[in-house]
Amino acid sequence: MKLLEEKIAKEGTAIGTEILKVDMFLNHQIDPALIMEMGKEFYRLFNDCGATKVVTIESSGISIAVATALEFGIPALFAKKGDHKNVGTDVYSAKCYSFTHAKEYQMKISKKYLNENDKVLIIDDFMAGGNACNALIDIIGQAGAEVVGIGIAIEKGFQPGGKELRQKGYKVRSLAIVDSMCDGKITFRPDIDC
Amino acid sequence: MKLLEEKIAKEGTAIGTEILKVDMFLNHQIDPALIMEMGKEFYRLFNDCGATKVVTIESSGISIAVATALEFGIPALFAKKGDHKNVGTDVYSAKCYSFTHAKEYQMKISKKYLNENDKVLIIDDFMAGGNACNALIDIIGQAGAEVVGIGIAIEKGFQPGGKELRQKGYKVRSLAIVDSMCDGKITFRPDIDC
Repeated sequence: MKLLEEKIAKEGTAIGTEILKVDMFLNHQIDPALIMEMGKEFYRLFNDCGATKVVTIESSGISIAVATALEFGIPALFAKKGDHKNVGTDVYSAKCYSFTHAKEYQMKISKKYLNENDKVLIIDDFMAGGNACNALIDIIGQAGAEVVGIGIAIEKGFQPGGKELRQKGYKVRSLAIVDSMCDGKITFRPDIDC
Repeated sequence: MKLLEEKIAKEGTAIGTEILKVDMFLNHQIDPALIMEMGKEFYRLFNDCGATKVVTIESSGISIAVATALEFGIPALFAKKGDHKNVGTDVYSAKCYSFTHAKEYQMKISKKYLNENDKVLIIDDFMAGGNACNALIDIIGQAGAEVVGIGIAIEKGFQPGGKELRQKGYKVRSLAIVDSMCDGKITFRPDIDC
């Protein structure tokens, strides 16, 4: 997605070869018009997948998931992290290690909102090692629901998450894939399928 | 906002006299069309306030804040809770006690995204005692920015947060005010200014 790549190039910050900060427009401050365009783009990429629900993980994935769900005319649903009292005890849950927070946490979705008839489009802001996405796939499997697509705003192409999920047969589409970062220069994978 | 009151009446659950669960459409599963309507309604209520930024708190406020910021054509910004590594150390912060999680946490906003020229519209999904909102006002004050309005989706009118903030002179507008809950019946405050 050209618009997102331009935004990353202009307002993102590469720190070393691993860390990409996009808190100017995506995961702290948010550009609402960009978010809505991302929703439209995910609809274009996945509108034939028969999704009944868009599922993401709090917090940065939420607005993208809602923008996408709006286009599909279906609900969005976000997995909660940690010890949420108000999610109840009747939940699907999976453990996930977060490199950002350097700790393991529990990811939960209430059993009320996911069942075996659901076809789930997973949406998230970032894909690196794929830990969060795999925990979400685990939860969706517990519900007997089907993952029909995985849409990622920014994939770190030099980390294995996206590649491994594609090898497992999932339809993974990323709006921008960063292949490398060196001396502050961000190189995108050209001609990606989106 | 009639649409929100109807949604609460139909899909919300009152537990005892204090707890209102709206995880069917607002803070776990999310109705994206409703969120966009809330954004339009907050624009109608606050479009004369000169806001330069919409500020909320992760997680459930984010999509409403983004929908509102979209209408204004300004950025949204969400305060992060807890020990986020990726928010950096150059932050404004305030302590906040969460009744939902039964613990105190640190709320943070990077100094990069808030300054003395900002006029802030605070948006959140719930107002009860007002703890989270007051911590946000503290942070906005640390930045030298001005709070020009406070927009709440659902206010618990039987708790003091909203009343106290209005008494301090803030322009507080809630899309629905729940005056009481009894035997599962939810009573809304009639004729609120929105």
